[in-house]
Amino acid sequence: MFITLEGTEGVGKSSNLAFIQNWLINRGKQLVVTREPGGTPFAEEIRQLLLAPRQEQVSDDAELLLMFAARAQHVAQKIRPALQNGFVVLSDRFVDASYAYQGGGRGISMQRLDALSQWTLQGFLPDLTFLLDMAPADALERAKKRGDLDRFEQEQQAFFERVRNVYLQRAKADPKRIMVINAAQTLEQVQQDIAHVLEQRVPK
Amino acid sequence: MFITLEGTEGVGKSSNLAFIQNWLINRGKQLVVTREPGGTPFAEEIRQLLLAPRQEQVSDDAELLLMFAARAQHVAQKIRPALQNGFVVLSDRFVDASYAYQGGGRGISMQRLDALSQWTLQGFLPDLTFLLDMAPADALERAKKRGDLDRFEQEQQAFFERVRNVYLQRAKADPKRIMVINAAQTLEQVQQDIAHVLEQRVPK
Ligand SMILES: Nc1ncnc2c1ncn2[C@@H]1O[C@H](COP(=O)(O)OP(=O)(O)OP(=O)(O)O)[C@@H](O)[C@H]1O
Ligand SMILES: Nc1ncnc2c1ncn2[C@@H]1O[C@H](COP(=O)(O)OP(=O)(O)OP(=O)(O)O)[C@@H](O)[C@H]1O
Ligand SMILES: [Mg+2]
Ligand SMILES: [Mg+2]
Repeated sequence: MFITLEGTEGVGKSSNLAFIQNWLINRGKQLVVTREPGGTPFAEEIRQLLLAPRQEQVSDDAELLLMFAARAQHVAQKIRPALQNGFVVLSDRFVDASYAYQGGGRGISMQRLDALSQWTLQGFLPDLTFLLDMAPADALERAKKRGDLDRFEQEQQAFFERVRNVYLQRAKADPKRIMVINAAQTLEQVQQDIAHVLEQRVPK
Repeated sequence: MFITLEGTEGVGKSSNLAFIQNWLINRGKQLVVTREPGGTPFAEEIRQLLLAPRQEQVSDDAELLLMFAARAQHVAQKIRPALQNGFVVLSDRFVDASYAYQGGGRGISMQRLDALSQWTLQGFLPDLTFLLDMAPADALERAKKRGDLDRFEQEQQAFFERVRNVYLQRAKADPKRIMVINAAQTLEQVQQDIAHVLEQRVPK
């Protein structure tokens, strides 16, 4: 089983990843916890290239191709082998983030995203995705407390509104896979909602 | 006008690039000389990721996506702007190298190469390509004198034979664009052959 967490900066992905991790361990699952972009040493090097603020303007297509390069490596070297060995894989972001950030945020067409996604993943998708949804501005306030902003976090509010909208569109189009969680609630309430979904979806 | 140089390691691309550069300057052309993977600071960082020998096995698809990420950046930020400003662009390798190395060498299908090439370049190709062709083993001997081998140079001879064959197939399929030059000749003879093509193809 492959589970992912999605949402704009600061919605609580990392906090709730820890919660899901504990929940699964209590259920006796063996699991691999990972993140995107990244997840292997080579893919983490690509992550650093992607997130570092820089003078040179990065072309939207180059950014998307780098995201998918890191993803191809992550899937081939870590996610697929773990799933084949019976582990649950839990990832902080996956392909939905490319649709939201490079599609919604940067404006790459959904058609071109589908083409590249198909090229790289050949239909491979998470079994379950938690979309932590809330007003991006409020979430960003939470994230800012952490310190220096990366290349994405430096974007304007309108960027994150577009990101959020694409996430919500994808959830609407694939409601069995993508569970929308109201992330504006207290962390306790968010975790109750997540636990409720896990109870229904994770096999004993 | 966009001119590229192709061939396996050590065939003499860099040596002849310098020759072509001088030839074009003598013709009064303004030119931008560049290389792949690389060509902009960001793309050069991707180049370093690609060429560094490493323990982790790099998935073939990840390698190809990285090559195209660097290429997307190179085209958007350097090649297209230079061409639009009337410069001749001269590049040490371009898209044919991906077909040869990741297609021929690694075994990615020509169909998947076409798909990714189309996604990234939308039909953009060099106007003229010099394919410096010779037995890869002999060429590699030349290159080895330069020192430490990168991740590609460490490949076996059969790899480079496959690379050479795809280069030659592409030249056969597109003989107006790709000029095959016998690189086993003396440097002087190679340069005479190149000058002959340039005389015919470069507008006064
Ligand atoms: N439901 C919540 N209510 C209030 N604060 C929260 C809530 N969830 C998380 N936080 C706090 O918000 C901050 C950001 O949370 P977290 O790091 O989990 O978000 P994230 O989505 O992983 O962010 P990023 O996208 O930047 O990695 C943290 O300080 C965290 O403690
Ligand atoms: N025609 C030639 N005959 C003999 N030696 C040559 C010839 N052309 C180049 N060389 C020598 O071979 C070596 C490799 O040449 P060069 O660096 O130009 O190749 P290259 O194709 O750019 O290699 P790489 O793919 O590793 O960048 C150099 O030492 C160069 O002087
Ligand atoms: Mg986080
Ligand atoms: Mg060279």
